[in-house]
Amino acid sequence: MATNTWTRHHVLSLADFTTDEYNTVLQTAASFSEVLSRRTKKVPTLQGQVVANLFFESSTRTRSSFELAAKRLSADTLNFTAATSSLTKGETILDTAKTYLALGTDMMVIRHREAGVPQAIAAEMDRLGVRVGVLNAGDGQHEHPSQALLDLFTICTLLNPQQPQVELLQGKKIAIVGDILHSRVARSNIWSLTASGAEVHLAAPPTLLPQMFADFGTDRLGNTFLHWQIEPALQNADFVMTLRLQKERMTQYLLPSLREYHQLFGITRDRLQLCKPNVKVLHPGPANRGVEISSDLMDDPQFSLIQAQVTSGVAVRMALLYLMGSGV
Amino acid sequence: MATNTWTRHHVLSLADFTTDEYNTVLQTAASFSEVLSRRTKKVPTLQGQVVANLFFESSTRTRSSFELAAKRLSADTLNFTAATSSLTKGETILDTAKTYLALGTDMMVIRHREAGVPQAIAAEMDRLGVRVGVLNAGDGQHEHPSQALLDLFTICTLLNPQQPQVELLQGKKIAIVGDILHSRVARSNIWSLTASGAEVHLAAPPTLLPQMFADFGTDRLGNTFLHWQIEPALQNADFVMTLRLQKERMTQYLLPSLREYHQLFGITRDRLQLCKPNVKVLHPGPANRGVEISSDLMDDPQFSLIQAQVTSGVAVRMALLYLMGSGV
Amino acid sequence: MATNTWTRHHVLSLADFTTDEYNTVLQTAASFSEVLSRRTKKVPTLQGQVVANLFFESSTRTRSSFELAAKRLSADTLNFTAATSSLTKGETILDTAKTYLALGTDMMVIRHREAGVPQAIAAEMDRLGVRVGVLNAGDGQHEHPSQALLDLFTICTLLNPQQPQVELLQGKKIAIVGDILHSRVARSNIWSLTASGAEVHLAAPPTLLPQMFADFGTDRLGNTFLHWQIEPALQNADFVMTLRLQKERMTQYLLPSLREYHQLFGITRDRLQLCKPNVKVLHPGPANRGVEISSDLMDDPQFSLIQAQVTSGVAVRMALLYLMGSGV
Repeated sequence: MATNTWTRHHVLSLADFTTDEYNTVLQTAASFSEVLSRRTKKVPTLQGQVVANLFFESSTRTRSSFELAAKRLSADTLNFTAATSSLTKGETILDTAKTYLALGTDMMVIRHREAGVPQAIAAEMDRLGVRVGVLNAGDGQHEHPSQALLDLFTICTLLNPQQPQVELLQGKKIAIVGDILHSRVARSNIWSLTASGAEVHLAAPPTLLPQMFADFGTDRLGNTFLHWQIEPALQNADFVMTLRLQKERMTQYLLPSLREYHQLFGITRDRLQLCKPNVKVLHPGPANRGVEISSDLMDDPQFSLIQAQVTSGVAVRMALLYLMGSGV
Repeated sequence: MATNTWTRHHVLSLADFTTDEYNTVLQTAASFSEVLSRRTKKVPTLQGQVVANLFFESSTRTRSSFELAAKRLSADTLNFTAATSSLTKGETILDTAKTYLALGTDMMVIRHREAGVPQAIAAEMDRLGVRVGVLNAGDGQHEHPSQALLDLFTICTLLNPQQPQVELLQGKKIAIVGDILHSRVARSNIWSLTASGAEVHLAAPPTLLPQMFADFGTDRLGNTFLHWQIEPALQNADFVMTLRLQKERMTQYLLPSLREYHQLFGITRDRLQLCKPNVKVLHPGPANRGVEISSDLMDDPQFSLIQAQVTSGVAVRMALLYLMGSGV
Repeated sequence: MATNTWTRHHVLSLADFTTDEYNTVLQTAASFSEVLSRRTKKVPTLQGQVVANLFFESSTRTRSSFELAAKRLSADTLNFTAATSSLTKGETILDTAKTYLALGTDMMVIRHREAGVPQAIAAEMDRLGVRVGVLNAGDGQHEHPSQALLDLFTICTLLNPQQPQVELLQGKKIAIVGDILHSRVARSNIWSLTASGAEVHLAAPPTLLPQMFADFGTDRLGNTFLHWQIEPALQNADFVMTLRLQKERMTQYLLPSLREYHQLFGITRDRLQLCKPNVKVLHPGPANRGVEISSDLMDDPQFSLIQAQVTSGVAVRMALLYLMGSGV
């Protein structure tokens, strides 16, 4: 696998990812995808190493995805969830991380509802001079790099199953629709898609997509566009990414009703007529059927990449854990 | 192992199990029992495969039993419990199952407090054309097939340790005592025991054993009998199965008090005098000592098969996972 | 490894540990420490065996430490936590333990908030004539033997990394400061340290260190001393053990405030001037920074052994599981 250019111990943000790094992740994930198509889906790569999943915010799919990725690399896993943790006893998050370091953890996968926690833990590991990799599995509304990388892998393998690479996205139009303001998934995707040369169109009501997003990414490729209606975003789009709508946005007076949201910004079969004929839809899950996406569309393999995204997730996370372990 | 006649990917209900299928489970479980008597209790059968335990209803013993069965077959396991799940985020149960499918799960063990959930998930897997086995680990008050199969294995290996088979139950009298109305364990056991040619006697207060049960199973072998007192059920019984009494039955006005229930339907050393001299008592656990069974009887190895049931459970569940994986 | 003198199946208390036993644990843990310094940190010692972590009281670090120790010995692990358990259904603790026995558990690691529970389970296993080892991972305010053994290992390997043995503690002065009344860690440490020939000085406010402690251990080596101020305990101390202060002690009227406690009994850089120049500080974790120990001291590798304790924990727990499995 093409790891010769990989130098990161940590995967915290995509803001400074290079094209080479994106392509290394894509190619390594493609190799692991091949492993996952065998009957015995395990490789001994991380035998004897320990991956700790430190989920200070609860999660089913992301935690299971990382756990399975680690097990398929033959690592041992430790699961920590805040509900049963020493945090209720007043220990600091850095102390929890240092405890897992001292236990013998080789890599930490960290989710926290506050932005910056994985970065703070990674900085502490570096300060201590230890070779422990830290992966950001979602920090507040900031970033969720492995989700954006699995979205990228899902799209690129669709375009070229044998040789997924970011160059395939050159000139593609990708719409991201939904609660962009609060979405770490959107933020990470904006980095990876604009770096790949795609044209990124964001669409949401103004309460969920403030003006500041217009400038987001313009210092890199200048190809992010902002819309307060859905139609111009979907027009001729190659891919549509929908985002989960947190129901608590309504009690925050950011939305009138789920029904109205669906009428204005829900992805439906009708609306997809605006897109390119082969348009595909992505959703990071878990989805609210009939809110951000119509229920029948979610289950239609002609349009939906939702299941492919989950499958890609295991391969991409195997790739990330493998690369972090091999970084010099 | 005699798997040549096995064709099921799913184990959802015992209602349509054939004698051949019961005997295949018993013989396969006997083989795994032998494995479990060795010092190294593992076989590589399911190496690299993933068994997901999706417990939408919490459980200690059943979840641990399945987890251990999977690990002893060298499978990797993923544990999902509703408390920490996306269900709180509004995802549907089918979406959760499809996520685990897309993650790469080979077999799903499912418990849910509503009847029919494992069946719905199995139907969806079949509709999708994927080879994922679904095992019902308890659905509402409907069925709990692996419990009835471990009860059957426990009884048959007692009658013939080398060659457990359902024919050994021909003409045996088996009493099932307790809250039959609400018991999925009783329902599954009625299917397996009547199919085995045993005479099944149900005993409970009328509030917990409505008249409709009189007809249950009569279209098959016609050997189920209903009693509103315990004595006729115990008379000359070879085996007595007690059921857990949920304490909330009292607040539902179905029972006057636990003490009165014990006086009328509790299994005690005295009451066992009515049975055959070698009578044995089973309980699916966890038991309320002094309610459905007297405390001293639970611990008396002359009568109690309770510990043997738990041990049988691991062998039977290894057999089921193995057979589901081998089904054509 | 020097296991020829080891005869215990259970590790419940240090009250009757012999010098030979302490040294066997220290030497075995030193061997496993060497394993943990390799890249592949696993040995096949307990392949195919099952270690059940029965934590009736929640814990992060101790449970993870035992889980990792078991996995590094290649055992399969089952985790039980009270929150999701049958205990809410009214099953007795002995019944839960017997269920895990019947499932095929080889060793049980038990934590419970009431003193005596691991001992009761061990007695039941012995009564049943089964070879299942029981390890007390903390019972109420009584004992926490593996914590005291890892403290001992941490101190002894500092004094002689190649040959840790209790004789190294002869004549050393060790201060234990904090809520000794409620601490199972302190109780276990008093046994091991006095048995090792160290001079043990206990320091706490009178509400947390009643007069009865003055006599504790005096029937063995007579070298435990009690202080209601911190200064005489620290004077010329070689090691200082601080204890976690439960914040609920204040609502119990045992303490005026955390701030006053820190002023009177907190371990600070200034106070350490009273000790020997090479003094080291231990804390069982999780720590309240700025209460029982100043925050900067916790992170100062010149003084703090806190991280070393966590690392020692895995090696010591591997040693205990290994020895319990080898006991005759």
